[in-house]
Amino acid sequence: MAVGLVGATGLVGRSILQALEQQRFPVGELRLWAGRRSAGRRLPFRGRRIRARELGPSEFAGCRLVFFSGTEGEKGASRAFARAAIDAGAVVIDNGADYRMEPWVPLVVPEVNPGDLKGHRGLIANPNCSTIQLVAALAPVHRRLGLKRIVVSTYQSVSGAGRAGLETLRDEMQNAKCRNQNPAFDRPIAGNVIPQIGDFGDSGYTAEEWKMVHETRKILHDSRITVNATAVRVPVEVGHAESIYFETGEKASLGRLERLLSRAPGVVFSKNGYHTPAEIAGRDQVFVSRLRADPQNPRAFSLWCVADNLRKGAAANAVQIAWLLYKNRMIN
Amino acid sequence: MAVGLVGATGLVGRSILQALEQQRFPVGELRLWAGRRSAGRRLPFRGRRIRARELGPSEFAGCRLVFFSGTEGEKGASRAFARAAIDAGAVVIDNGADYRMEPWVPLVVPEVNPGDLKGHRGLIANPNCSTIQLVAALAPVHRRLGLKRIVVSTYQSVSGAGRAGLETLRDEMQNAKCRNQNPAFDRPIAGNVIPQIGDFGDSGYTAEEWKMVHETRKILHDSRITVNATAVRVPVEVGHAESIYFETGEKASLGRLERLLSRAPGVVFSKNGYHTPAEIAGRDQVFVSRLRADPQNPRAFSLWCVADNLRKGAAANAVQIAWLLYKNRMIN
Repeated sequence: MAVGLVGATGLVGRSILQALEQQRFPVGELRLWAGRRSAGRRLPFRGRRIRARELGPSEFAGCRLVFFSGTEGEKGASRAFARAAIDAGAVVIDNGADYRMEPWVPLVVPEVNPGDLKGHRGLIANPNCSTIQLVAALAPVHRRLGLKRIVVSTYQSVSGAGRAGLETLRDEMQNAKCRNQNPAFDRPIAGNVIPQIGDFGDSGYTAEEWKMVHETRKILHDSRITVNATAVRVPVEVGHAESIYFETGEKASLGRLERLLSRAPGVVFSKNGYHTPAEIAGRDQVFVSRLRADPQNPRAFSLWCVADNLRKGAAANAVQIAWLLYKNRMIN
Repeated sequence: MAVGLVGATGLVGRSILQALEQQRFPVGELRLWAGRRSAGRRLPFRGRRIRARELGPSEFAGCRLVFFSGTEGEKGASRAFARAAIDAGAVVIDNGADYRMEPWVPLVVPEVNPGDLKGHRGLIANPNCSTIQLVAALAPVHRRLGLKRIVVSTYQSVSGAGRAGLETLRDEMQNAKCRNQNPAFDRPIAGNVIPQIGDFGDSGYTAEEWKMVHETRKILHDSRITVNATAVRVPVEVGHAESIYFETGEKASLGRLERLLSRAPGVVFSKNGYHTPAEIAGRDQVFVSRLRADPQNPRAFSLWCVADNLRKGAAANAVQIAWLLYKNRMIN
């Protein structure tokens, strides 16, 4: 199968290459594209080094599957080129935010809503990193007990802002004064935390916070869930953490919740102890710990959820979608 | 006035010395005490250098005021020595956690519950750092509108764990492998976040999380407020941040909340923009920003709250208590 990857030289692009290898996706021909400045670079795949070319609308001929990899919040190349790829007969899996909320576009976490792929119209959206781990953890709860309310505060790593985010943190940590000419963040991030991810939008919430509201409702098919999010950048290279408080529709014991989470697909649940971003970077699962009942509310619980934002939050989820499409013969 | 300071060489102890100078507290004689390993060190105060001696129960004679400075969660010297200081005629202001929840002990944030100092019995407790900034921000809301529920996730700096916390972070940042023989945290903190502060206790909540529940209720005189806390350590040197979601008893407009917070004593409220820990380290106020209404619940709001944990979270609050006692002739 001819597979294409737009944005191959970015952090998520490289992570998609790794995920295609590790998940043994049946790639025949592989075509890589990059922006003007990065075109020409060679990237490793199955022991070869493949040159990334500059993208143009006629490049998609013969591709059956094309990944568009934008990082968190980025307006991607998909607005400009996804239509050309679809018209050329490819199925597009878009990691960017451009199409996620379009009604005709499935927004899919394979463990949660694989059925949404049915009848797709050529483009599947990969959800935002912070949404993926949230819904992976809470979908089994939603299915069995209902979910009324989510209050989530995030601890998001700088790689969510792409290579510029990583370089900004590394530069700042090496220099008392930031030598980075174009820092990825509005304030110093080394030795600091910044309560803004994306632009400020309606009602004082940021773009990242609204994504968690709208995408969660779309993926869980439940527009009544209230999601109150605060998205915060922390000086961590890879791995997003989330402190999640939630209220169920039905009363449930802590033991019931523990059983639901320990059987949740794609979730590693620890009843004791906890996970931190540094420990789980490089892994594809969503890690849930510190599940506890609210002593004051029989329908409320808290948990701590960590995932690698480049893997399950982006590349691994995208390649899982590709596998689902392939197995279900949804690729032409 | 003869003033004593137990734990003078610690981070909070040194911060109390600074606060006594900066708040121009009427210190006549100053006696400093430290643990065995730190006794003998000389500390700067008003241009002199004063030697810290080892503490013994007969050291308090003549002291009218004694500060006990423990860091976050530490079992302090106050259990061993506070009674001797009180019996010697001193009023004790204890930064440690040992006495905070004793019914006879006032737990005071001067902007919030100064009246609790009346009829004190010789010992006043300084609340936990993460509680002080929470109640300073929310007390005006509680007073005018009532507070039903608080859901808070913290971003707490390593200095909350004292000098050992600071040194652990600095060591880890200089070395890929931690050379610190006794790291202050159970996991690496550089480039990481750790969802545990204090030991795990009842129901899976940590000691730090329970402090925020019990101390908030005690300070606000309202045992019906539900507080759900998640306390997280982040790789920041000084300054704690909190993502706070709260529900009021009465409905209120965002404008009403903005007016309440902009008039709140000791609070710097920013209607636009936000504060980060690195910016406000060294300042004595509580900084509140990102106030927003929950679009889905007319009684719910969110805000972002930052304060210097060594200053308003510890030393500055303790010296403010001392001033209140002094002005109200509550020191013998």
